Amino acid sequence: MYPGFLNLIDILGTFAFAVSGAFSAMERKLDPFGTLIIAFVSAIGGGTLRDVLLGNFPVNWLHNEAAILVIFSSALSAMLFGSYLRQLTTALFLFDALGLGLFSIIGFEIALKQNLSIGICIALGTISACFGGVIRDVLLNKVPLIFQKEIYALACVFGCAAYYLLERTRINTDVARITCILLIFAIRVVAVRFRLSLPRISLKQ
Amino acid sequence: MYPGFLNLIDILGTFAFAVSGAFSAMERKLDPFGTLIIAFVSAIGGGTLRDVLLGNFPVNWLHNEAAILVIFSSALSAMLFGSYLRQLTTALFLFDALGLGLFSIIGFEIALKQNLSIGICIALGTISACFGGVIRDVLLNKVPLIFQKEIYALACVFGCAAYYLLERTRINTDVARITCILLIFAIRVVAVRFRLSLPRISLKQ
Amino acid sequence: MYPGFLNLIDILGTFAFAVSGAFSAMERKLDPFGTLIIAFVSAIGGGTLRDVLLGNFPVNWLHNEAAILVIFSSALSAMLFGSYLRQLTTALFLFDALGLGLFSIIGFEIALKQNLSIGICIALGTISACFGGVIRDVLLNKVPLIFQKEIYALACVFGCAAYYLLERTRINTDVARITCILLIFAIRVVAVRFRLSLPRISLKQ
Repeated sequence: MYPGFLNLIDILGTFAFAVSGAFSAMERKLDPFGTLIIAFVSAIGGGTLRDVLLGNFPVNWLHNEAAILVIFSSALSAMLFGSYLRQLTTALFLFDALGLGLFSIIGFEIALKQNLSIGICIALGTISACFGGVIRDVLLNKVPLIFQKEIYALACVFGCAAYYLLERTRINTDVARITCILLIFAIRVVAVRFRLSLPRISLKQ
Repeated sequence: MYPGFLNLIDILGTFAFAVSGAFSAMERKLDPFGTLIIAFVSAIGGGTLRDVLLGNFPVNWLHNEAAILVIFSSALSAMLFGSYLRQLTTALFLFDALGLGLFSIIGFEIALKQNLSIGICIALGTISACFGGVIRDVLLNKVPLIFQKEIYALACVFGCAAYYLLERTRINTDVARITCILLIFAIRVVAVRFRLSLPRISLKQ
Repeated sequence: MYPGFLNLIDILGTFAFAVSGAFSAMERKLDPFGTLIIAFVSAIGGGTLRDVLLGNFPVNWLHNEAAILVIFSSALSAMLFGSYLRQLTTALFLFDALGLGLFSIIGFEIALKQNLSIGICIALGTISACFGGVIRDVLLNKVPLIFQKEIYALACVFGCAAYYLLERTRINTDVARITCILLIFAIRVVAVRFRLSLPRISLKQ
């Protein structure tokens, strides 16, 4: 049952990442080709950067036909049914938060297999989940949103750390995964609901 | 005869990519060092991204002394004879369109050798030809032009797809290559001549 | 004695790169997480790009716990003691210039081991030292500073070339290293002291 459950989250998360990318592109008045590229980059950018840093080639998405299909359909839906999808803000946010959780844990596990230190594995999990959005913002000529607003990457850091601790107990791996995905999900929901963000530290001059 | 012909296109295309990069840099008032870097990135960025995604290391240009020499001379020419070269707009556009065709087909062939699916090979051919310009625009702090204007990447997509179909007939490889390079070239010329571009899809809010 | 001396430069240089990155981020009003990321990218971006182009995986910093610790502490110091550290402009500039020298030579040596041509090795040495700043500026949505101002990358080019020549004499390697680090350091100090920069070449239209 669990693998199927994780598969569903994978599809929903990829959908949410791609749609939010497509919307950002359309707000910048990109053409359909540019919109498609930004949708792709949003969904696969983080995992690609992780694979490049670790040396896993060819990078994941080149072999992941299912993901490509999902992203392609998501971008198409965003272009064709944009005004309708826009009304599903809450659903998209929840899918995004689930995807954030899953992609962090997947990235963390991949890094862990290469015998890297725990801090680096947490960093790579976070990069997997968050840096698609960073590359999207760079391509759209904006300062990346996650460097400025809300608790986003920090949720991934906590989730990966929790997963590491859970794994050291003898708990079932799928239970540990889902617990931590839900933890990341919950942190995101709470952060957005209560408008939590990190305090700025300004430079007194 | 053909390999020499393709070599000539390679040089002309690299020249056109590097010169257009150098011009963009000079418009942004970069210094000669910055101009040189942007010329390089414009010419080799796409192939480098392709090599990194596929895991071909060291990436192509590190071994390609001929390309480096061409790019270096192109950037130098742009800096020294800029006002003269500027008058050759049409020639530069035609070289650029030829280069676009060749680099797409080269990228497509490299991807095909790694047993990737046909859609991915087309994507990698297109990335090889187009993403130098994307990285150039990101470094110059602009939204990448090809996401916004004209039919550029789409020409590469069509050309690579046509090449794949031609290769499945028993046609001579060089003939197939040149046919598809000319197809990409023709699409570009027609698109620019008749100001064709993809329709924008705006977000009704 | 020398290895320790080089180690000290490594720490001071990494500190200067990370602190200057953190300051740039704070000027853009990034939150602490964004500031940390920019500090990291400034310090390890150049070496990471070098490793990716050459195919050295996992890239250096994933194994370099000392560097991570230094960067983390530097970013933290910048956030906590920013107004104090700001007064140390001269010290930070000198550390930065030393780091620039060391990272160029390290990058050059790594490239040389892979039997690449001398021009490419110089380019990779320069990339190692300078492209952290380029990625920092791209993430902060600015045209990279080193493409516009002062003699920065050019100092690395000269230093690497000098190192290559010194290595061909039978001089001791550590002596050659330190000489060239000091050469890069001296070029930077002179360039900034006398406000030397490359002349712009403008486009007459």
